[in-house]
Amino acid sequence: MDLSKFAGGAAYVGGRFAPIAEATIPVTDWGFTRSDAVYDVVHVFRNGFFRLDDHLDRFQHSMARRRLNPGEDRATIEAILHRCVALSGLADAYVAMVALRGRPRIAGSRRPEDCANHLVAYAISWIDVIPKDVQDRGAHLWIGSTPRVPDASVDPVVKNYQWSDLTTGLFEAHDHGFDTVVLCDAEGFVTEGPGFNLFVVKDGKLITSDRGSLHGITRRSVLELCAELGLDASIGPIPRALLEEADEAFAATTAGGVMPFARVGRTILGNDRPGPISSRLKAAYWQKHDEGWHRTEVRPLEPEFSSAG
Amino acid sequence: MDLSKFAGGAAYVGGRFAPIAEATIPVTDWGFTRSDAVYDVVHVFRNGFFRLDDHLDRFQHSMARRRLNPGEDRATIEAILHRCVALSGLADAYVAMVALRGRPRIAGSRRPEDCANHLVAYAISWIDVIPKDVQDRGAHLWIGSTPRVPDASVDPVVKNYQWSDLTTGLFEAHDHGFDTVVLCDAEGFVTEGPGFNLFVVKDGKLITSDRGSLHGITRRSVLELCAELGLDASIGPIPRALLEEADEAFAATTAGGVMPFARVGRTILGNDRPGPISSRLKAAYWQKHDEGWHRTEVRPLEPEFSSAG
Repeated sequence: MDLSKFAGGAAYVGGRFAPIAEATIPVTDWGFTRSDAVYDVVHVFRNGFFRLDDHLDRFQHSMARRRLNPGEDRATIEAILHRCVALSGLADAYVAMVALRGRPRIAGSRRPEDCANHLVAYAISWIDVIPKDVQDRGAHLWIGSTPRVPDASVDPVVKNYQWSDLTTGLFEAHDHGFDTVVLCDAEGFVTEGPGFNLFVVKDGKLITSDRGSLHGITRRSVLELCAELGLDASIGPIPRALLEEADEAFAATTAGGVMPFARVGRTILGNDRPGPISSRLKAAYWQKHDEGWHRTEVRPLEPEFSSAG
Repeated sequence: MDLSKFAGGAAYVGGRFAPIAEATIPVTDWGFTRSDAVYDVVHVFRNGFFRLDDHLDRFQHSMARRRLNPGEDRATIEAILHRCVALSGLADAYVAMVALRGRPRIAGSRRPEDCANHLVAYAISWIDVIPKDVQDRGAHLWIGSTPRVPDASVDPVVKNYQWSDLTTGLFEAHDHGFDTVVLCDAEGFVTEGPGFNLFVVKDGKLITSDRGSLHGITRRSVLELCAELGLDASIGPIPRALLEEADEAFAATTAGGVMPFARVGRTILGNDRPGPISSRLKAAYWQKHDEGWHRTEVRPLEPEFSSAG
């Protein structure tokens, strides 16, 4: 099989495997026209998935909550992800799985119940949410003025593409010369940023938000690391003032791991560099990767799929 | 030119015209993965656009608010819409224009400022939001328990695809045996439904919501008709109780015009049929269409585009 066509990335779409450049959806798919889709992203690090089962668990939860059922069972989805990575030949990859509402089976129907749900998956080159050089100096975090969409309106635990409030915040951050943004809710509590959970370090204790936030899998990894390292860490409310008076702060996300901030709004944290606890957690996070923590080796190409390649 | 391939609908995508079946976007387009897109829909009725300028005005406003600039100027967008309809051969069409964020010009960038925005447009067969037979008996409207996303988080005046709260409400309505849904905001005021503004009639006066709602162009048409017919109509707050005690209620949307409700939740309106004022406005709305109100004739195929067909 000629794998060169998959060099830029490999996808599963419409029930078959294709080069990423050919992975498209119709402009009339409700996954697009109603943003009626859920997704998840898992990291492949040196030919191994990180916490693959946890991402599959969350993806299944998200699909169930939105009544999306593309038909592929969990074992099949898992096999598809393995194959996308294997086809791409990427040792380090950003691997996405997406369930879309699709289009009505009955022409003219406007009922989501009538739609043919479908699965898209792909493996592409690894991307950090925050560029490496910015991570090294410590990223600058803007506190956005747009309130995060309330949990009661859109459940943030169901991983979704409705990023409008986050995108508004990103523009505002960039306009002010900052790298990224975190949003507060209407009551003034810190929630999350575009693609990451936030941790605050104050007086040696860590806290991450209990509201307006995805239940991040990197967040879970950080909490596990804290337990191992004997650090006091919890999930709870973060008033905006606590973030503004933090000793340290960092982002936690699949797409980058632990990424320290050096500034929050007009506040310079510590020495205007990544803080010591953040840096220790970042080092531990990647050290554990080296040791094979929560690792699932990527399977070689399986012959039963080969006709579709 | 062989137009048969456009019989199911015609699209403009990636800078060229194509049959609707070939109109796709990449699965990695931020228009999809961040729902970072705005759109508008105009009705073609018997070979004429209805209020084309108003839809183009609103589309331009939406693009500006989201800092989207696909490059095509207004006259070009207008010409593209004309050509999509002409290629499709449809006398009655649902004509969409969409501006998408696209993908970063710089590999690995996570900045929306770095993306190559682009335009998609298409003409497909006409669809009513509510099926004709349901409109005739009077649709049954459920008042959803999910609060509408607040205006402060996502501006509802910018026509967008972030329908999660509306979709949640639609499922709830269908679960209860209702046809469609309207959402209230967190303060208990009525907003809009999936794809329509709501009008309430009480003691001979009409009111449509001043919050959580698109500035609908059909809504504007209804307000103009009310002025002509000497009906008292206004834009203002609608407490949930006012809707529950309404004499009549109807939806206003491009995709269907004026569509009366016969029931709101457990309340039967009037004789469990479309009410007299709603029915009068519906008749006037289509009567004015017959008379060429706000009409722009669809242009025949223009030779300067023909090579792209």
